[in-house]
Amino acid sequence: MTRKIRIDMNSDVGESFGVYKLGFDEEVIPHITSANIACGFHGGDPGVMRKTISLAKQHGVEVGAHPGFPDLIGFGRRNVDASLEEIKDDVVYQMGALQAFAASQGLRLQHLKPHGALYNTAVANPKIWEAIAEAVARIDREIILVVLASSKKEPLRKIGKRYGIRIAFEAFPDRAYTKDGFLVSRREKGAVIHDHEVVAKRALKMAMEGRVVTIDGSEIELKADTLCVHGDNPAAVQMVKKIREDLKTAGVEVTAMKHFI
Amino acid sequence: MTRKIRIDMNSDVGESFGVYKLGFDEEVIPHITSANIACGFHGGDPGVMRKTISLAKQHGVEVGAHPGFPDLIGFGRRNVDASLEEIKDDVVYQMGALQAFAASQGLRLQHLKPHGALYNTAVANPKIWEAIAEAVARIDREIILVVLASSKKEPLRKIGKRYGIRIAFEAFPDRAYTKDGFLVSRREKGAVIHDHEVVAKRALKMAMEGRVVTIDGSEIELKADTLCVHGDNPAAVQMVKKIREDLKTAGVEVTAMKHFI
Amino acid sequence: MTRKIRIDMNSDVGESFGVYKLGFDEEVIPHITSANIACGFHGGDPGVMRKTISLAKQHGVEVGAHPGFPDLIGFGRRNVDASLEEIKDDVVYQMGALQAFAASQGLRLQHLKPHGALYNTAVANPKIWEAIAEAVARIDREIILVVLASSKKEPLRKIGKRYGIRIAFEAFPDRAYTKDGFLVSRREKGAVIHDHEVVAKRALKMAMEGRVVTIDGSEIELKADTLCVHGDNPAAVQMVKKIREDLKTAGVEVTAMKHFI
Amino acid sequence: MTRKIRIDMNSDVGESFGVYKLGFDEEVIPHITSANIACGFHGGDPGVMRKTISLAKQHGVEVGAHPGFPDLIGFGRRNVDASLEEIKDDVVYQMGALQAFAASQGLRLQHLKPHGALYNTAVANPKIWEAIAEAVARIDREIILVVLASSKKEPLRKIGKRYGIRIAFEAFPDRAYTKDGFLVSRREKGAVIHDHEVVAKRALKMAMEGRVVTIDGSEIELKADTLCVHGDNPAAVQMVKKIREDLKTAGVEVTAMKHFI
Repeated sequence: MTRKIRIDMNSDVGESFGVYKLGFDEEVIPHITSANIACGFHGGDPGVMRKTISLAKQHGVEVGAHPGFPDLIGFGRRNVDASLEEIKDDVVYQMGALQAFAASQGLRLQHLKPHGALYNTAVANPKIWEAIAEAVARIDREIILVVLASSKKEPLRKIGKRYGIRIAFEAFPDRAYTKDGFLVSRREKGAVIHDHEVVAKRALKMAMEGRVVTIDGSEIELKADTLCVHGDNPAAVQMVKKIREDLKTAGVEVTAMKHFI
Repeated sequence: MTRKIRIDMNSDVGESFGVYKLGFDEEVIPHITSANIACGFHGGDPGVMRKTISLAKQHGVEVGAHPGFPDLIGFGRRNVDASLEEIKDDVVYQMGALQAFAASQGLRLQHLKPHGALYNTAVANPKIWEAIAEAVARIDREIILVVLASSKKEPLRKIGKRYGIRIAFEAFPDRAYTKDGFLVSRREKGAVIHDHEVVAKRALKMAMEGRVVTIDGSEIELKADTLCVHGDNPAAVQMVKKIREDLKTAGVEVTAMKHFI
Repeated sequence: MTRKIRIDMNSDVGESFGVYKLGFDEEVIPHITSANIACGFHGGDPGVMRKTISLAKQHGVEVGAHPGFPDLIGFGRRNVDASLEEIKDDVVYQMGALQAFAASQGLRLQHLKPHGALYNTAVANPKIWEAIAEAVARIDREIILVVLASSKKEPLRKIGKRYGIRIAFEAFPDRAYTKDGFLVSRREKGAVIHDHEVVAKRALKMAMEGRVVTIDGSEIELKADTLCVHGDNPAAVQMVKKIREDLKTAGVEVTAMKHFI
Repeated sequence: MTRKIRIDMNSDVGESFGVYKLGFDEEVIPHITSANIACGFHGGDPGVMRKTISLAKQHGVEVGAHPGFPDLIGFGRRNVDASLEEIKDDVVYQMGALQAFAASQGLRLQHLKPHGALYNTAVANPKIWEAIAEAVARIDREIILVVLASSKKEPLRKIGKRYGIRIAFEAFPDRAYTKDGFLVSRREKGAVIHDHEVVAKRALKMAMEGRVVTIDGSEIELKADTLCVHGDNPAAVQMVKKIREDLKTAGVEVTAMKHFI
């Protein structure tokens, strides 16, 4: 008897701000298992955080912090040359703020995934993953840190052990990969895959075989615990639905990461 | 055998921001028992919050949240016509952020006291006290809400009961009082008392007799659990030292509010 | 030979911020004559300001500053209890920033109209109109100040004379009026009129007769120089088109306020 | 008959924000000839800008814009990975805002000097100098752009010609220089010179000989139009006074850059 394959589906949500609406949270949240909720520095605000937690709760979706650089005008997509201490402090602050909204609705944070430039700069410099891991560990060691699944997993596993926290590896079905197992930069052609059928097939291959076809046509191992999906527009939401259905049809159990990490 | 009189001394601290230094926190914190720490909306930033918690811990001083309106340029002193829902959300956010810094240093928040215009607007409109109380209760019912000691305590006690939280009444030794037991507006002459000797005597009278001489020369009851003192400048710090010493000499036990509320 | 009736049509635009898009500027700008451009305090950002100026220029639409309170999260709709000095400074700052973008594209600001809570608080307190007028006059006396057309025009005309600037009176075809010629508060039922036909008829009556039917069914004088219209959604844009067409059909000349104020 | 040597002395001022006071502007401004005024993005606010312009006017000191990255919490000292378009827009915005305060007091901006990380990133990447030059040129070609005097002046002169604006080269008497004529990074030992006598001598040598002794003891050419001095603390102000007096004693004419650039 074989053990069922399990995978998580995460999406960045709660990125609206004041009168400004961003993303189709109400549509995408029912189809994911882990919601990465913006914490007010690059997007999100206190009211949006409360409502997003409530929406996730209503659909039984796990909630996690999605901290970013303090750069609302750049939506956290521009690298800010912050010190490790500043990054730790910014992560503690944002995580704490979201945690309070979760607690006020009887929930706990399942995970934390850095946003945009903070994520990218961590991928480029493991000292930043370490700073983030330390911030998480100081607050709550039950919180899982979501990092990029690449060919270089060992240093990240070590960081997890050092700080006594669990690490979840994340893959992007709609992003092209280099043969080294890293994401092709968005500045390069073909970095983002728009064909729904192709994306759904890649998601399935990632989940079932732990493999991905790279941008140069070769195939590499890419074991992931969670697939990142998007709810930016109605078409994206349809893609998320399709990925989830295809995974189910193929016998993959789509469930929150905390159940198997 | 009489029971010893006990009183708390609180001060607003952690109001620096980035390169901008405000207040003499290192000097005043050793002399108080409860530190009201700014949470980033009107003053304070993540790094300042961490350092202020650390300073309080070092001196065995209890920490509390000091949330304000999101108005850094006005230092939270200008009323913002926010809805009750917005106020609740802003309080949850700020309280959560500070709580995370406290937790990361092994501390818990003892209390919450709103700042500046948020405090004043609550004094003028009990619905705002209620919104703040609800926010506190949602997060942690062990957290004490600090409110103005005036002639109208009963509605505030009721709010505390309704939300299951403790209420601490606060008096201001250096502020003039009306005969109704409210603060004389800062816009009026004589609102702030600058003479150290007079302030220290008022503090003593408040602690020992639960009474204050009003601006029109009469005397009223004003029972308080905590005295608000300031560390804005070296002279203010000296005044705090003197108040504490005079209280001690008179046999009053100066101790954190959580021990007797 | 009778002189042709002339009227301006103004709309609030340039209110997007960073990745956040708000309003249908590209659709509504071709149909108006004066664009009120947000200046970064309640909405808008440097890039949005540049693009909005460019869009207005392309359609031969006059540009004006639309300063608000520094309250991005509340979109400038919450009153901030700022001093007159603070209001003047905030208006100078925002006007100057927009002026630079206009200058860099070879344009000059035609007018200034305060936004949201700043506008409403000025309507309630003429001292604020005066502060804004003073700020305008200090920078450029060619800039027209747009104010609410009500039954109390004389004090505003006096302010214009005192500071040597022109005043344009503005009416709202889609808003209900009290019999005193003020706007019915949005909190009250019937404050906003949604029926396109009705709004277009009111616009026509305002332009041609200088009169409006009030919420209690009576009719009052309401002479206006400019009609405020909205581009919040595609339906609103259609309404703007209809108003403009109806005015044209009726022989009214729709032209920028600077040509006739 | 020899022509008198002339030099400008500039200082960063107007960096206070809200209740937060920074620098000794009132003390240092009387001793300089060009004031670089913060514009609200990294420091400064509308009220501070008005007051700083007023202070400069009172002492006959020329005013200039000192734009920075939108990073108040980092005081503009952290590089933000902004696009050239974003930098141009941010500079136009800040310059325009300050210009309005200058105009409202009957002054015009003499110069513009980027702040902190924006300055440093421009030194490292001339495309950024070009973006800033373009922003200046779009607004007012009379405004002088202040850049770092180094061994590589020619590319900067070309940028000035391309955009039709004047360039002023700036030297730092209290900073160590590499033998290539660039500033020694603040992260390195000896980067900042604290001995007043030494600094004053370096200022004199810069002004009279156009030369500087580098950190490795050699001497290089370093012709500058303006010397950057600081008013961070009372001792720094004394240093500024001494530099100005020594220059005067040596027969150097200390005068605003616009008189000789």
